[in-house]
Amino acid sequence: MTGNLFELLKVSSKSKARRGKLRTAHGDIETPIFMPVGTLASVKGLSVRDLRELEAQIVLANTYHLYLRPGTPLIAKAGGVQKFMGWNGPVLTDSGGFQVWSLKDFRHITEDGVEFQSLLDGSHHKFTPESVMKAQREIGADIIMAFDECTPYPSTVEEASQSLDYTLAWTKRAMDWLRDNPPVHDYPQYFFGIVQGGMHKELRKKSIDALKELSPDGYAMGGLSVGEPVETMYEIADFCTDSLPMDHARYVMGVGTPWNLLSLISRGVDMFDCILPAKNAQDGLVYTSRGVLRYKNATFADDSRPLDPECDCHCCRNYSRSYLRHLFKVKEPLGWTLSTIHNLHFYLHLMQQARNHIESDDFEDWAAEMIPRLQQDAG
Amino acid sequence: MTGNLFELLKVSSKSKARRGKLRTAHGDIETPIFMPVGTLASVKGLSVRDLRELEAQIVLANTYHLYLRPGTPLIAKAGGVQKFMGWNGPVLTDSGGFQVWSLKDFRHITEDGVEFQSLLDGSHHKFTPESVMKAQREIGADIIMAFDECTPYPSTVEEASQSLDYTLAWTKRAMDWLRDNPPVHDYPQYFFGIVQGGMHKELRKKSIDALKELSPDGYAMGGLSVGEPVETMYEIADFCTDSLPMDHARYVMGVGTPWNLLSLISRGVDMFDCILPAKNAQDGLVYTSRGVLRYKNATFADDSRPLDPECDCHCCRNYSRSYLRHLFKVKEPLGWTLSTIHNLHFYLHLMQQARNHIESDDFEDWAAEMIPRLQQDAG
Repeated sequence: MTGNLFELLKVSSKSKARRGKLRTAHGDIETPIFMPVGTLASVKGLSVRDLRELEAQIVLANTYHLYLRPGTPLIAKAGGVQKFMGWNGPVLTDSGGFQVWSLKDFRHITEDGVEFQSLLDGSHHKFTPESVMKAQREIGADIIMAFDECTPYPSTVEEASQSLDYTLAWTKRAMDWLRDNPPVHDYPQYFFGIVQGGMHKELRKKSIDALKELSPDGYAMGGLSVGEPVETMYEIADFCTDSLPMDHARYVMGVGTPWNLLSLISRGVDMFDCILPAKNAQDGLVYTSRGVLRYKNATFADDSRPLDPECDCHCCRNYSRSYLRHLFKVKEPLGWTLSTIHNLHFYLHLMQQARNHIESDDFEDWAAEMIPRLQQDAG
Repeated sequence: MTGNLFELLKVSSKSKARRGKLRTAHGDIETPIFMPVGTLASVKGLSVRDLRELEAQIVLANTYHLYLRPGTPLIAKAGGVQKFMGWNGPVLTDSGGFQVWSLKDFRHITEDGVEFQSLLDGSHHKFTPESVMKAQREIGADIIMAFDECTPYPSTVEEASQSLDYTLAWTKRAMDWLRDNPPVHDYPQYFFGIVQGGMHKELRKKSIDALKELSPDGYAMGGLSVGEPVETMYEIADFCTDSLPMDHARYVMGVGTPWNLLSLISRGVDMFDCILPAKNAQDGLVYTSRGVLRYKNATFADDSRPLDPECDCHCCRNYSRSYLRHLFKVKEPLGWTLSTIHNLHFYLHLMQQARNHIESDDFEDWAAEMIPRLQQDAG
């Protein structure tokens, strides 16, 4: 719609891996990219300085959560979510479609939208494609997402088709509303459609064809990593990118491990987000150049080495496994912050390496070597 | 014992306020000083970089807590608590006397020491003056504290006298042990005696006289701010500093508000520690140049100003009251970290100002103006 968000810089000669660039009013984003999740306009335990040091290029926030607290008009009044959270870089907001869908017994889905009850105070609310776009205008993220219905896994072709029809109708209504209601902040907002259709290729194709007619600024793939085997996830993403336009960004939502990211990059995906690096850090698990390390294990009690001897993040430059294990054991919040910093650094550095290897056209060899190494048990 | 820890630089012409310097192997400490509390070898939510930016000169840790987790031999193996926590500045360890005393139904005090049960796992332990000094040798703080018995408030002169006898006997045993057992790390450790005696001046005097005979490296005042009226606390501290040697540092343990600190500085106290700035930050209360501000109040929901417009801490330079209130409401850990940074900055900056005003010999006028201002309700 707004046009010119994405520029395709290079495609690998041996796979569908791509280098690209997203241009937003708050800065450029080099792809492939991982986007740290800041659901409530805060990446768990990290200051914006930490994010800048990590060279995070864009941060995710969530419309559903910000709608409930602190409320989107308040963020509008602050001048948009970037100013509100003190982060002068790009932000992407998810629409909240997945969150209201997840409320299960506390939501009712109709053709018009989703009525739901807040789990915080029992209050009643309704999201429609129009109201969610309005909320995203108020929040003012640089990239905003369609309001979709997530298709459960497994689902029959009939169920998935019905679900897809809702998503497509809602996407059209959202784009109509956006056309009539320009941004409330003084910079453009780019709109991504979301491909649904469950694990049914014919429906994914139908979804893509319909979206292409609507011509959004980018394309997300939703309804993946919802319980299906990982090979199915790869196959569906691979199938989708075959049909998606080359000159627009492709974003797989809510995925995944470091090796998932590399596998999906080779299948032509540009953008990722996931709570995994933050959540795993809180559970005492970190990703390293030598594999997965459970730093809470007793074997690290007096290990003076950093989490990853090859890592130069703030955590690895200053703290030992022994100290981090201690912080984890005594539940000191610093432990979560530091291990989250490490994991996010690991993801962002991996994406930097991926970009470099696509540039030098040896991404596939590098990824083939990295994927098994990243999955090793490092203790 | 070790000698030459403290140098008295200047005494105010109008009060007992003093400027001094403590010299340790990990750095010099300008007094009066406030010491951030890092009970478990971590100042809640703050990285050592945050501490350096705050210009923290020394950090407190706690022997009782570190003895239980991760265990003092592990810290010894890491090369001392400074290396363990990645903090290359001075550390002071409290002895754990107050903590085991606080266990009430789970401890038994004898002439020999304190038997207690861990609240973590029910395991049985015994602290003696000797074992606590050994633990503090292993931890390796630059300044270590006597193992004392805290005198409850209120207490009769007989109760307080009995309690004091224990503390004095234990202090002598501790110093004997330290004399026979040099540091395990390659730098000196300075030992502070603790003045007890409840609110009974004759006992405080007896405590000080006995301690002076033992000639520790510094003098702490314990058993204050344990429920007595604030004026009594000031009176007892004032009484004590009249008898304490001028050429040694005086430390009031576990106190207090910013105005408490200024009031005690004018009574000749050099060193302070307290959990208050961190605890209050977590409860949504911050200290500012215009008084006490409860940033969780609804009135700040869309207030775009920093917590304290006159403050240049990391929090005030980057974040609004509105955003901090949001973080507090949604329980995002970043809110606690940022408000703790602000409060610690406030305390440390206040001590810097106090030092400057003692230097320029106008501390009393400045303090008289500040004390009511700091206590104002700023909203």
